[in-house]
Amino acid sequence: MTQLELARKGNVSAAMKAVADKEGLDPEFVSQGVAEGLIVIPANINHRGVEPCGIGKGLRTKVNANIGTSSDYADVNVELEKLRAAVDAQTDTVMDLSTGGDITAIRRAILAATSLPLGTVPIYQAGIEAINRYGSIVAMPVDHLFAAIQEQAEDGVDFMTVHCGITLKAIDRLRKAKRVTDVVSRGGAFTIGWMLHNGKENPLYEHFDRLLEIARKYDITLSLGDGLRPGSLADASDRAQIEELLTIGELVEHSRAAGVQVMVEGPGHMPLDQIAANVQMEKLVCKGAPFYVLGPLVTDVAAGYDHITAAIGGTVAAAAGADYLCYVTPSEHLSLPDPDDVREGVIGARIAAHAGDIIKGVKGAMDWDRKMSVARKNLNWEEQVKLSIDPPRARKARGQHGTTGAGCSMCGQYCAMDLVAKYLGTTSVRC
Amino acid sequence: MTQLELARKGNVSAAMKAVADKEGLDPEFVSQGVAEGLIVIPANINHRGVEPCGIGKGLRTKVNANIGTSSDYADVNVELEKLRAAVDAQTDTVMDLSTGGDITAIRRAILAATSLPLGTVPIYQAGIEAINRYGSIVAMPVDHLFAAIQEQAEDGVDFMTVHCGITLKAIDRLRKAKRVTDVVSRGGAFTIGWMLHNGKENPLYEHFDRLLEIARKYDITLSLGDGLRPGSLADASDRAQIEELLTIGELVEHSRAAGVQVMVEGPGHMPLDQIAANVQMEKLVCKGAPFYVLGPLVTDVAAGYDHITAAIGGTVAAAAGADYLCYVTPSEHLSLPDPDDVREGVIGARIAAHAGDIIKGVKGAMDWDRKMSVARKNLNWEEQVKLSIDPPRARKARGQHGTTGAGCSMCGQYCAMDLVAKYLGTTSVRC
Repeated sequence: MTQLELARKGNVSAAMKAVADKEGLDPEFVSQGVAEGLIVIPANINHRGVEPCGIGKGLRTKVNANIGTSSDYADVNVELEKLRAAVDAQTDTVMDLSTGGDITAIRRAILAATSLPLGTVPIYQAGIEAINRYGSIVAMPVDHLFAAIQEQAEDGVDFMTVHCGITLKAIDRLRKAKRVTDVVSRGGAFTIGWMLHNGKENPLYEHFDRLLEIARKYDITLSLGDGLRPGSLADASDRAQIEELLTIGELVEHSRAAGVQVMVEGPGHMPLDQIAANVQMEKLVCKGAPFYVLGPLVTDVAAGYDHITAAIGGTVAAAAGADYLCYVTPSEHLSLPDPDDVREGVIGARIAAHAGDIIKGVKGAMDWDRKMSVARKNLNWEEQVKLSIDPPRARKARGQHGTTGAGCSMCGQYCAMDLVAKYLGTTSVRC
Repeated sequence: MTQLELARKGNVSAAMKAVADKEGLDPEFVSQGVAEGLIVIPANINHRGVEPCGIGKGLRTKVNANIGTSSDYADVNVELEKLRAAVDAQTDTVMDLSTGGDITAIRRAILAATSLPLGTVPIYQAGIEAINRYGSIVAMPVDHLFAAIQEQAEDGVDFMTVHCGITLKAIDRLRKAKRVTDVVSRGGAFTIGWMLHNGKENPLYEHFDRLLEIARKYDITLSLGDGLRPGSLADASDRAQIEELLTIGELVEHSRAAGVQVMVEGPGHMPLDQIAANVQMEKLVCKGAPFYVLGPLVTDVAAGYDHITAAIGGTVAAAAGADYLCYVTPSEHLSLPDPDDVREGVIGARIAAHAGDIIKGVKGAMDWDRKMSVARKNLNWEEQVKLSIDPPRARKARGQHGTTGAGCSMCGQYCAMDLVAKYLGTTSVRC
């Protein structure tokens, strides 16, 4: 039985218990959330030792780090280095988006190297194998796509992005929408190319039940991808995007009915003032399914700094109810990320998740800030470093310039908090 | 006559014309905004060659970079290097917050080295000179404070942060508020220490007319500082903060009546969902005076990454109507910034300002994103680099890893936009 089926029968599984313990919540609360489809716990039954991670309502907002090769750079050792960078920076999950080298071997190496839940986009492997075997992605037989899904399922992949919501009707709306950057999702592009070339419906939509069967068997969480997500502010929240979301909403209900855990992916590039509406729309259309957003990036022009634009949009999204943030690295739009980019991306997303959690009222979120502020007020530097989101970085920045004062070298002998404490009689405060 | 007085008489000054030209607006619009106090143009009549920069309603959101020595590090050459970093990263204004070394000489060196509007916090110089001359800040005679203001005015400082809103009543509210991090403003701490030690009202409040006289003579824009700004999320929007704001609102009206340009400073540390309310409150209480925010930082725990937490809060503030963002660097809370920190801080603030401008509907803001997206869709890399917020950084990241594809090394041969273009018939789009 899947976690969803277990929860529906009123069970509290070991995974649900583990999630509850980590979050400081009641196991029944988690079980109830899973039963209603408001929480997912991506954990393939074949993924031995996977640390259960809950994503959804009432839980801490989670962060995902994308790693993986490209056709230009396909060194498994670099990917394992990126994996370590992501884990060190405290990502909650990892996705292997490899499209270069021996995709199967790289995935297995990553799976063997981490106990974090692992996600993939199986059409990458299927499409690229189709190029090698049949000459092009568009020549990919449907069975070949399902063979890749099956292989990855057996390997223990915990969640899979599947672009099931791209229908011929959605492509029609896409054409009418006259976008600036029509399709920026790689899986979306593979799918649309295949559909238009073959003049056929999306195989993952048409054969959705076949997909559900595999997902149910291994308890894979489906992450219904937004192949038509906007790739520019100009295209945000257009009819093509919403058309796909409507189909995804139907597939959410279908998945749940089949006992399959499911979440929904979201934008993308988007002006700040559309983010909350998009989150709310997903929650309504998809009946509260956990929402997994990429960004959103609040401007198109910050190439080189898109970990920042994503942190801005991600905070607003999380505060509005998004459950899961896919990181964006500083190299987005420019090149494959390095381990350093991975680190920056994870930290940026964690900042956004946490700042959002403060607004959501997630248990313990505000306490962390309070403890930090108490340490700050008490000029307790060891504690400040320990409580910071990235202790090694904080220690390094603090150590960069020594000080003769009680504070730091910015104010030197004139630390505001130090100065007023004696006049206000607040030399030491407690948590 | 000050810009405010000129505008009130229906004049369009050269500075107003220059501001209008830069923003692509009608000079009368700028003049009208200045007349109503909704726009300020900080330009001391003694600051030869200063580039007029408009701050306020209907204009592009502006960015300020704080530089300056501390008692620990007081090398004028490093400050000039930071100035260059800030200018290269395209800050709109600079503040010299020096508290170490020969403060007068450093300020003059900075003024000589830039044509950007320069701001200061005169009580730093006054307070630190008081330590040297009278043994402590609290021994500072009121005349000494005004002598520093006069000296800086004559030197050509364009805007001054003055913490005039801290009254004995506000300190009373501060005590009752039982804050975690009572005072984090350095100028606020100097002022409160002086007031409590001497048992006297804030000299800049009590002698506000004397301040106005100097400001009017040199057309210095007063930036009414928030000495009681929250230094932690726990303290945000408390009664002490709002008490100070109410007084500041009265002083705004007083300044305008005296023909003095005035803006208002704001928080600080603040949960995301309080930011818009704070902006609106300032606009109401201070009758639309330009709002200059520091951050806001949406979490306390991200020491080492506070350029990101500030970009998050700054975007939301700008979108809600804040006019001017003071940058925060990655070294905030940890050490005096380096030139690299300065660059990161300016870019972070510019991202926030621009993402906010998209929401404000500032002229040209959305066009920039559209041009970038068109260049992206057309895989025009030279144009993408040129249009990015920091072209050298974008060029470097792009060049880090070469690609065999039409896109970048992230997708290599499988660029989504490249793949679908032939199927959708959108190979090349125009702006």
